[in-house]
Formats: sequence, C-alpha cells, structure tokens
Amino acid sequence: MAGVASRYHAVWLRDNAWDEGTRASGNGQRLITLSDVPEDIAISEVEVRGETVTITFAPSDERIDYDVNWLLAHCYDLPQIAEKGWISDEILVWDSAMSDHIPTADFGQVKADKEALAAWLDGVVQFGFGKLTGGPVEEGALFEVADLFGYVRETNYGRHFEVRTEVNPSNLAFTGLGLQAHTDNPYRDPVPTVQVLYCLENSAEGGENMVVDGFACAQRLKREDPRGFHLLSSYCARFEFAGSEGVCLRSRRPMIELAPDGALVGVRFNNRSAAAITDVPYADMAAYYAAYRRLGQIIDDPNMEITFKLEPGECFVVDNTRVLHARKGYSGSGSRWLQGCYADMDGLRSTHAVLVQEIVKAAE
Amino acid sequence: MAGVASRYHAVWLRDNAWDEGTRASGNGQRLITLSDVPEDIAISEVEVRGETVTITFAPSDERIDYDVNWLLAHCYDLPQIAEKGWISDEILVWDSAMSDHIPTADFGQVKADKEALAAWLDGVVQFGFGKLTGGPVEEGALFEVADLFGYVRETNYGRHFEVRTEVNPSNLAFTGLGLQAHTDNPYRDPVPTVQVLYCLENSAEGGENMVVDGFACAQRLKREDPRGFHLLSSYCARFEFAGSEGVCLRSRRPMIELAPDGALVGVRFNNRSAAAITDVPYADMAAYYAAYRRLGQIIDDPNMEITFKLEPGECFVVDNTRVLHARKGYSGSGSRWLQGCYADMDGLRSTHAVLVQEIVKAAE
Repeated sequence: MAGVASRYHAVWLRDNAWDEGTRASGNGQRLITLSDVPEDIAISEVEVRGETVTITFAPSDERIDYDVNWLLAHCYDLPQIAEKGWISDEILVWDSAMSDHIPTADFGQVKADKEALAAWLDGVVQFGFGKLTGGPVEEGALFEVADLFGYVRETNYGRHFEVRTEVNPSNLAFTGLGLQAHTDNPYRDPVPTVQVLYCLENSAEGGENMVVDGFACAQRLKREDPRGFHLLSSYCARFEFAGSEGVCLRSRRPMIELAPDGALVGVRFNNRSAAAITDVPYADMAAYYAAYRRLGQIIDDPNMEITFKLEPGECFVVDNTRVLHARKGYSGSGSRWLQGCYADMDGLRSTHAVLVQEIVKAAE
Repeated sequence: MAGVASRYHAVWLRDNAWDEGTRASGNGQRLITLSDVPEDIAISEVEVRGETVTITFAPSDERIDYDVNWLLAHCYDLPQIAEKGWISDEILVWDSAMSDHIPTADFGQVKADKEALAAWLDGVVQFGFGKLTGGPVEEGALFEVADLFGYVRETNYGRHFEVRTEVNPSNLAFTGLGLQAHTDNPYRDPVPTVQVLYCLENSAEGGENMVVDGFACAQRLKREDPRGFHLLSSYCARFEFAGSEGVCLRSRRPMIELAPDGALVGVRFNNRSAAAITDVPYADMAAYYAAYRRLGQIIDDPNMEITFKLEPGECFVVDNTRVLHARKGYSGSGSRWLQGCYADMDGLRSTHAVLVQEIVKAAE
C-alpha cells in the first residue's frame, strides 16, 4: 500500500527468517535459539527485487531473503486494541435471534465431503457450537463425530459418559433435573475445550437442549455493568468436584478469562460445581457477588438462548471455553439417553485450518 | 483465635451452605442457582453452639447450620497479595542445588503402596517433576505410569510417541540433535499439562536429560529485570506447528502466564515452535526481545538445571506448565529410545488429594 510504512526490528527479522539454516526443511521448526543471534544485530543493507526483500545483517554479514507478503502478513507496526474484552475477528457473537439459523450439517455429508466438513467447522469456530443431523442411532457414534476433527479427551468419567437418569448419580447431569446453562468441568484445569453430546433416545417430555453464547453474555455484562465485568475478570473463582470415589478436582480460575492484552478468551460458569470463592477481598465481595448474579441473569435471559430438541442420531458440539449449554428438566413415560465425550478446540482449529488450505490449493 | 474476627457476607454464606436443600447428598453438587437467593438477603440472627454456627436469614427466615471449622478454612477476610508473580504455597522453586535430591521413587513401590505413591506425587506437585526408577523395560510401560495418576491426552502424535532418531522426522525431537530446554507443545491450547518420558534404550553417547524450573526462571527474571518480566507476562507470544501432514496447530498465549490476581500459573518457552510475535506494539518490541533473550539466558544457565541420564526402565514426569526439559545431543554407536505421552495435572492433583485424604483418614 503506497504511503503506509511497516517497520521491523533487526532482531525480529533475524529470529523469524525462513532460510534453511534457521528453519528445518520439512517440519519448519526453528533450528536456532535467540542466543545464536548477536545482541548488537543491525541491518546493514536492504535490497528489494520483486516480492523478495534481501536483508544483510551486521555484524555477521549474513544475507537472508524474505517474502514481502509474509512480512506484510506478520506486520506488528499497528495501532493496538486497548479495550478489555475485545474478541478476535474469527468470532461472531450471537443471541436468540440466530435460532432459525443454527449452524447445522448432515452427518453423512461432513464425513464424505471435505468442503462440507470445513464449512461446518467454520461455524463451530465462529459461533462456538454446531449441530449434526442424520447420524446413526448407535452407541459410540459420538466417537465418529470426535474423529472428524480431533481426539477424545479421556477423564475420570471415561472416554465417554452416559447422560441418562441414574439411581445414585455421581453427577446431577445423570438425573432428570433441569440444568442451568453452564460450561462443563470448570473444576478441571485445563477444562475440556470441546464437548460432544449425541442423542440416542429422546421420547421423554422435556429435555430440550439450550445453548448460550458466553462471550455475548460477558460483553453484555460489560456494557451494562463495566465494574462487574472488571471484577469477574480480575479475581479467580474456585470450582470443585468430589462426587465420585477417588476424585477430588479443584481449580482456581476467573469466571471471565482475558488474555493479558485484554482479549476475551474464556468463560467458566457452573452453579453446581462452584466452590467457595475465597480470592476476592472482603471489600469487593458484595460487588463481586452482585456481578456474578447479574451475569447469571443475563445467561438465564431467554433473549440470549437458542433451544432445540435433539432427535435420535442428532448431536451438537460446543466450544466449552465459550458456549454454555443447558437442558430442561424431563420426566414422564418416555426415555432420554445421550452419550457425551470431550475433545479439544486446538485439534478442531487445526483440522479446520488444514481443510481450508487444501480447498484453497485445489481451487488454484 | 481470640481477638481475630473473620467477616462473611450474607449472600456468600447462603450460596455456600451445605444443607441438603442446597447441596445434593452424595455428589455434593449445588442444587440452587444464585437467582434462588434473594437480592436483599440479610442475616437476622446468629447462634453459636460448640462448633456449629446457626444463621437465620431474612427475608426468608431460613435457618442453616455451618461448621465453624469450614468457615474458618474458607475465610476471605484477609490481606491480599499485591505483588505480581507470586506462587502458591504448595510450590517450592528449585535450581541446580537440588541435583542430589531429585524427587525419585521406585516404580514397583509406587504401584503397590499408596503412601509411596502419595509421597512421590507430592514431589511432582511441589517441584513440578519426579523420576521413577526400576520399571519394566517394555514398550507401553509408560501407560502404567500415566495410570498411576490420570489419563493419557491423545494428540496428533498418537496416544504415545517414539523419541528416537528418525530418517524424515516430523519433529526435531525425533533426531539426535540437542534440544534447548523447552515446554512441550506450546502451540496447543490447552497445552498438555503433564509429560511422561520413559526410557527403553540409552547406550548412545550423550542424550542426557535436563530439567529447569520455569517458575524459578521467571522469578529470577523478575528480580533482575522487572520490566522484562512485565513485558513477557503482558503480551501474548505465538506458537505454531505444521510439521506433519494434516496438522496446523497455532496458539496465542504469553510466555509467562499470570492469573488475573498476579499468581504465576504457567510458562511457555520453545525456540523450535515459536512463531512470529505480532501482538507486541512496535514501541515495545525491542525491549520485549531483550527480555525474551534474558529469559533464555537464565534458562540456559547451568545453575538453573538438573541433569540426569535415564537408564532403561527409568522415566520422569514433568508439569509441562512449569518445568522445562531438554536433552543433550547424542550420536555414536549406541542407541537411544524413549517413549513419551501426555496427561494432565488436574488428574494428578486429584489423585494426590484423594490419597492424602485416605491416608489421613486411615491414621485417625
């Protein structure tokens, strides 16, 4: 772009070189450490030919070629976002207005067609959840869903768990009770960042699923109560689960997690497993609880939620660092049986990125 | 304690009640949400009898019993730690002075004896690593190690991976090259929080393992260069791995991770998979790189490292959010073969907490 300058430091350029002395061919890993770069490194000469920028470094006299497009794509000479709670461009927040446009795909199609899979994963990355329809009504089918994008995260609940009414439930999820919208397993650190819930039977009265965009709720809290947003993101909450024999999981993390530069990166909310909050100073506790209450009210607001009832062979996945899920209570003569498992968003994002690259390449 | 008062808010007390209307018997999960607690809740009466405090709440007139010891153990009316980079009491930082006192146990003993296992896990929690000796020289024995405390985290590398010289390595770990001390897989989010490295063959010249306490390094950086510590904890770095087909893992997290209240909770450091850092403003990039260099020098300082050579049947586990590991280059006529797998610290801490509870109970 004419007139726009992008500045780079010599040390940054040298560290980020892609020549074969710096990066392993094949796997692309860096072969040098920063101690291999002289402290007094400087640029002695720059030469531009077409899309290649050749830089000569002093004092070593090394000459290294850079792709100008790579440099522009990795420019850091930019205005910074100062506001806390900002979200990355790839994310779109939503509320109940999206109810008629749930990101949905057909199970058979995403299994067979890379473009269909990429489009569905795109929805999961953007919206934090996605539904699949038309899958087999078979135990273990949920593993085929996880295989589409990543790896099952095994926990004390097993590689998967059964969500149906149990007589002595280790977890309230395994009853017919309604569950307030929540993220799963906040007492784990790291939390499982993906959950798959796959429906095998659902003839009971009730038992609808709901999803709520935790990022939209956090942003709404910030608009309506900036001080409350500040408190929930500045102090750690605590979570605990000790409901099964041999298990005593505890975590200490904020309900609203920001990156150090203020990016909104996670929400943890779960009334069942919230432990006593002891990291908020006495003077702030009343205001913290008011903010916690307000966040819960926003989460419970029907304007924020999308409701659907899964049919046998249908499932949904959620980004468990962002999207809360809930279910309405159920009872009566019918049955309700879901299978659930955990996985991770990094694998899902990786699969998505690779598919997009392949599709772009094939189109060239 | 005579003369020391602990204050509690009415809403905190009501939310943290343990009566059977509030918490499910059996699994202990909370049955109410904050919307079930009136906004104008207040304490109308307090009665103390022995170790029970009975509180009457207005406007509901509910009377709930509290265990005074539970209340004192969860007191939040305390002075707060203001300094950034503080670490929890359960952690002990270390350097090379601990070389003769590596937390070590016998494989057979920790498998057979709960107290031995608890003591060894105690070391892993405190020091962030632990060694086991005398295990079987058998493929897959590393899974028995993971089974001692948790669950394997499967990744694109499989449920486990082979660490030996390969012809076309997807990762520099699978060569004979020396590797600078690093945390594993910082390009994953969440990172695997435990790594197990199990030795099956080690007759090659070299190939010693080293561990470095990343928390000790971060604290040393803070003492020597407070501004550098501030920069590395205030901006996100980026990491990437795209060395295998179908894999494109990327993360955006700080090298030094603090909880919002300043607690030191994680270190990410890996020269091989560090991607271009683009989230540091131009004006701070030179100082950021100087701090990154300084942290690397501290990590490379022999005074910070513990070195050992694993014999076949020996292994070590590291808390991958805290302790860096390295290996010296190897070559020559012998062979070196390790198997590695990932797991998570939450499961390890849970197993440790349950064992400690069982041992305390048995001693009563």
